Amino acid sequence: MKPIPEALQSTVGQRVDLIDTPALVVDLDAMDRNIQRMADFARKHQVRWRPHAKMHKSAELALLQQQAGAQGVCVQKVAEAEALAAGGVRDITITNQVIAMPKLHRVARLAAQLAARGGRLGVAVDHSEGITRLAEAMAQHGSDAGIDVLVEIDVGQGRCGVPPGEAAVPLALAVSRSPRLRFAGLQAYHGRAQHLGSSVGRREAIAQVVRAARHTRQLIEAEGLTVPLITGSGTGTLVHEAASGVFGELQAGSFMFMDADYARNEREPAQPAFEHALFVKTQVVSVRDTHAVCDAGHKSHAIDSGLPTVALLPPGHALRYGNGGDEHGLLYADGPEARLPTLGRMLWLIPGHCDPTVNLHDFLIGVRGGLVQGVVERIIRVDARGALT
Amino acid sequence: MKPIPEALQSTVGQRVDLIDTPALVVDLDAMDRNIQRMADFARKHQVRWRPHAKMHKSAELALLQQQAGAQGVCVQKVAEAEALAAGGVRDITITNQVIAMPKLHRVARLAAQLAARGGRLGVAVDHSEGITRLAEAMAQHGSDAGIDVLVEIDVGQGRCGVPPGEAAVPLALAVSRSPRLRFAGLQAYHGRAQHLGSSVGRREAIAQVVRAARHTRQLIEAEGLTVPLITGSGTGTLVHEAASGVFGELQAGSFMFMDADYARNEREPAQPAFEHALFVKTQVVSVRDTHAVCDAGHKSHAIDSGLPTVALLPPGHALRYGNGGDEHGLLYADGPEARLPTLGRMLWLIPGHCDPTVNLHDFLIGVRGGLVQGVVERIIRVDARGALT
Repeated sequence: MKPIPEALQSTVGQRVDLIDTPALVVDLDAMDRNIQRMADFARKHQVRWRPHAKMHKSAELALLQQQAGAQGVCVQKVAEAEALAAGGVRDITITNQVIAMPKLHRVARLAAQLAARGGRLGVAVDHSEGITRLAEAMAQHGSDAGIDVLVEIDVGQGRCGVPPGEAAVPLALAVSRSPRLRFAGLQAYHGRAQHLGSSVGRREAIAQVVRAARHTRQLIEAEGLTVPLITGSGTGTLVHEAASGVFGELQAGSFMFMDADYARNEREPAQPAFEHALFVKTQVVSVRDTHAVCDAGHKSHAIDSGLPTVALLPPGHALRYGNGGDEHGLLYADGPEARLPTLGRMLWLIPGHCDPTVNLHDFLIGVRGGLVQGVVERIIRVDARGALT
Repeated sequence: MKPIPEALQSTVGQRVDLIDTPALVVDLDAMDRNIQRMADFARKHQVRWRPHAKMHKSAELALLQQQAGAQGVCVQKVAEAEALAAGGVRDITITNQVIAMPKLHRVARLAAQLAARGGRLGVAVDHSEGITRLAEAMAQHGSDAGIDVLVEIDVGQGRCGVPPGEAAVPLALAVSRSPRLRFAGLQAYHGRAQHLGSSVGRREAIAQVVRAARHTRQLIEAEGLTVPLITGSGTGTLVHEAASGVFGELQAGSFMFMDADYARNEREPAQPAFEHALFVKTQVVSVRDTHAVCDAGHKSHAIDSGLPTVALLPPGHALRYGNGGDEHGLLYADGPEARLPTLGRMLWLIPGHCDPTVNLHDFLIGVRGGLVQGVVERIIRVDARGALT
């Protein structure tokens, strides 16, 4: 585990205004409420939740979610799974294809380790070659613990996965016939649907997803093979998968922090009222007649899903954030009463996309009592930051 | 210094095809040639070069540039300066405003440390308040070593800096009258001009920069204060600043690695033929009828200046990289002879923008002998990765 730098550790117990900038700050009260909302939602819909830890990359936060009822976590990378397992997480699904033999040996080793600790590992496949290689790695490793294998179907994302329907059947059968591989069901995630602006657009997209997944399940079960689980979904569409009767597990991850991009979209009435809990604290370092400049650029927050918004301003005093490059943000007055902020002023940004934003930081600063008067409660390690392989 | 993971260290001496993916790889031969080209260029134009280390963030690479004749390095952040100083770099200019008092105390401490080692620290200012606070921090620290202070003028970037001309004069005089602050000249960087597509556009933009900087210098010198240096420039425009007779120092940093965005622009005839030296190695993990999917998404490389290009393909066999999210890239056949790559195929990407790409990685893998047959020579620490404050 990476050591927490002394300068950062020394902020614990201090007021938020003493946090050096730029810094990635978690509003722990808002985060806890979001976790509780998700737990209540899943219980009400009798669906499991397995949040995607590619978002927070933190063993501490994964375990917090499990205490609230989460089944375990999802990750995208073997190295993420290893980092979280090292931090005590025991139930992990890699929702991605693993093809390189050295990586598959790491998967086999981790599967045995987690099983020995009473946990499990899962992984996705979308090609017969991937199944053959995984079985070979599991055989070489010699463990009888086995591994859960999900067949990934492409339900609209246009990325990995086989087309829904017939193409999934031989893969499911191949998994079921491989020693040490357990056919665990279907991975069916439509990432693009999460970010559709209109509520109707998202509902229609997921209706298609549900039809495709159900049809694929029927074809596999017609071959005498049970499909134990259909898993997928995200924060933007979870009300639809939860109500579908087809999805048994929700992989939504962003709900815990939320990001500016989700806030820009029309909200589902049935969706829990998730709050923003992730902020970049920044300081104004230069003032001009036309704009001010703050010390948070796109090395502090990801801009792949749009620029951040400026939070916590009184009504009419909005500021617009403009791209100032890697290390700077440009601030423009954007409300009827708005004035440019003064030199040295502290501001709070809501990142456009939380997953790649968290990945820029080694630590999150957890604040209790709000961003105005609150106090730093603890420093949270981003254990799997940069865990790419 | 962060320890090099054993799995990474064990690749030293191995062939490139054994590098796990995705990975950030430096072609050391190309990098060495780029450094030599820059050294030759600066010598020919009798101009100093102080490469911007916000690009590579590595003390090892900064010292390599200094061995080739570089004056020292630039950085944007106090934490970057601290990380590079800890790695042995002694001549550092922070080309940015520092406003927070705790940071200014760190600046004062670092200035004393570097001076004690025979080095120096410089910093930019664009406001009288910044000068007052810096002088206060230097006074409290009690060191007589002093610090170089550049007055930043905005020569077209539209970010920090005072407008060129009269506004710079009182700042230069205020610096010169402050104990322990040495007026070191003008910081004049036009970042936007670096990325203008047309050669004529860049030439005209820098002609304006040069006029503005010369005029500002004249006004300050009319007050009896010598302007020892005008510093700025970048890889896209350095031929113009070098030929201007006004710029005494070039801050270009990207030349060492180059990025896809610079390659898309019309090349200056007089510009040294810098080569791409930074690559993301990636593997195909899924194949479809329409596209293939590789394991490098925008957690492996920054996309703020466009998507990466696929390198090292034979003529007619081009592949186009499409955005597949945080962890995936989509690959499309894009040449008359192009076929989709097969499952497991290794590919090499040229990132759109090297600075924020390097900042995603803790280590660079240095390869000697080319990317096809080469061997891993050494692992290079990205000392200032995530050094934001």
